[in-house]
Amino acid sequence: MKKIESIKEFGGYLNRYQHESQSCDCLMTFSVYLPPAAETQQVPALYWLSGLTCTDDNFRVKAGAQRYAAELGLALIIPDTSPRGDHVPDDPDRYDLGQGAGFYINATRAPWSQNYRMYDYVTRELPELVEATLPLVPGLKSISGHSMGGHGALICALKNPHSYRSMSAFAPICNPVRSPWGENCFSTYLGEDREAWKAWDATCLIEAGAKPVPLLIDQGTADEFLAEQLHPQQLQAACAARDFPLTLRMQDGYDHSYHFIATFIGEHLAWHAAALTA
Amino acid sequence: MKKIESIKEFGGYLNRYQHESQSCDCLMTFSVYLPPAAETQQVPALYWLSGLTCTDDNFRVKAGAQRYAAELGLALIIPDTSPRGDHVPDDPDRYDLGQGAGFYINATRAPWSQNYRMYDYVTRELPELVEATLPLVPGLKSISGHSMGGHGALICALKNPHSYRSMSAFAPICNPVRSPWGENCFSTYLGEDREAWKAWDATCLIEAGAKPVPLLIDQGTADEFLAEQLHPQQLQAACAARDFPLTLRMQDGYDHSYHFIATFIGEHLAWHAAALTA
Repeated sequence: MKKIESIKEFGGYLNRYQHESQSCDCLMTFSVYLPPAAETQQVPALYWLSGLTCTDDNFRVKAGAQRYAAELGLALIIPDTSPRGDHVPDDPDRYDLGQGAGFYINATRAPWSQNYRMYDYVTRELPELVEATLPLVPGLKSISGHSMGGHGALICALKNPHSYRSMSAFAPICNPVRSPWGENCFSTYLGEDREAWKAWDATCLIEAGAKPVPLLIDQGTADEFLAEQLHPQQLQAACAARDFPLTLRMQDGYDHSYHFIATFIGEHLAWHAAALTA
Repeated sequence: MKKIESIKEFGGYLNRYQHESQSCDCLMTFSVYLPPAAETQQVPALYWLSGLTCTDDNFRVKAGAQRYAAELGLALIIPDTSPRGDHVPDDPDRYDLGQGAGFYINATRAPWSQNYRMYDYVTRELPELVEATLPLVPGLKSISGHSMGGHGALICALKNPHSYRSMSAFAPICNPVRSPWGENCFSTYLGEDREAWKAWDATCLIEAGAKPVPLLIDQGTADEFLAEQLHPQQLQAACAARDFPLTLRMQDGYDHSYHFIATFIGEHLAWHAAALTA
């Protein structure tokens, strides 16, 4: 991997890298914040998965997370939201399909299946790459995300309960098989067999008996996508039915934006840091 | 003025307004963050002036200031960086002249003088407007800014020492009459008489005997514009010659970006809050 940018922030460094991804069969860009503690020791990592239309840039610019990561001694690993490039399939007329909308799954339908393997990328290829080259404690990681990336964080941890110490999300798509965003991407990337979709849906995974990983969710009550797309109540019901530990906080008056994330990101990072150092 | 957006953040509200500005003879947009304390009492205000190419959006999204403003009970008043509109003179081929580059002065040359009166706007029209309509303590304000906006913050306070309790800046253009950015805009907006420029230059104003206002400046040593455009040493020399109180902190390894601002904005807000509540 090649470092293409390095900016000092809160005493640590916000770096950007590029590498040829095997999972995604394209050049991928990602960002890493290394806290001051990483200059003298290996640190735990929090992976952040962003939402529709984002790149690795949105979170690092808008969330205000680096301050807390510096204080807590956490590295932030911030991948892109899909494969990229002229040779990568896309639907340029849609913001919610194709590039910028990888949904953190492994596509099985052509032509998407050649590149849209963000699940493999986030859970296997990227951790192997950064743990081999950066001052990270091998295997010590947690995961969080927003909206589509909240869905991504949940399925990555639910499908790999021994690989993540904790998971959290802001306004996640909790039950994508029932949301227009999810139905649209899953039918395109996976085909029309709805049973196959359930392996990529947090609510369905918990209903099917996924092992517990500590889970914190913040959801704004003024979120413009809450009613149609996000369905936290479905996830809550699934957790209740299986005694799956969930902390779901309905935050009065907050919307779907990064201003909502900025308000609570410090609490999420402190919560992950506690799990990572327990 | 008309509220066009309101987003809950850190328990307070980030609002955006539009109004017909008399100073700028155009429709102006600005943002205000009202901390939770503003729901029950009047609060002091910190004005933030942004740099070249910015609107009111950059600071509110990138600096992470709202967290500190919420904690400290400060309102943030965030104007645009120039007049705007199809009828407003511009130089679309340049990022450093015309719209997005008002330089916080009152232009005297046609056609710029009709609209480019950001100094009047920031020091008189906007405070009168927000103090008449929002829960602000009348007259209790400080000012800060970045780059061109750091220059703006300095000249606003130096020319109105009784109107501002404190001033601060990140990487300000300290001596615009000697910087290519300043020379370009001043010659266009003010004409070729360099003596007239000195009334809009912080270093020249201090050399000419401006009354003291507490002044804090952070400047990154890895700032790509430091050598050619910013000249903090000129300001430092002027302050030393007149016993003008200056705290200039050269911050090792920091650049000109909002990541630099985010790192130190909390210390600036705490410093202003102390001055505003003294």
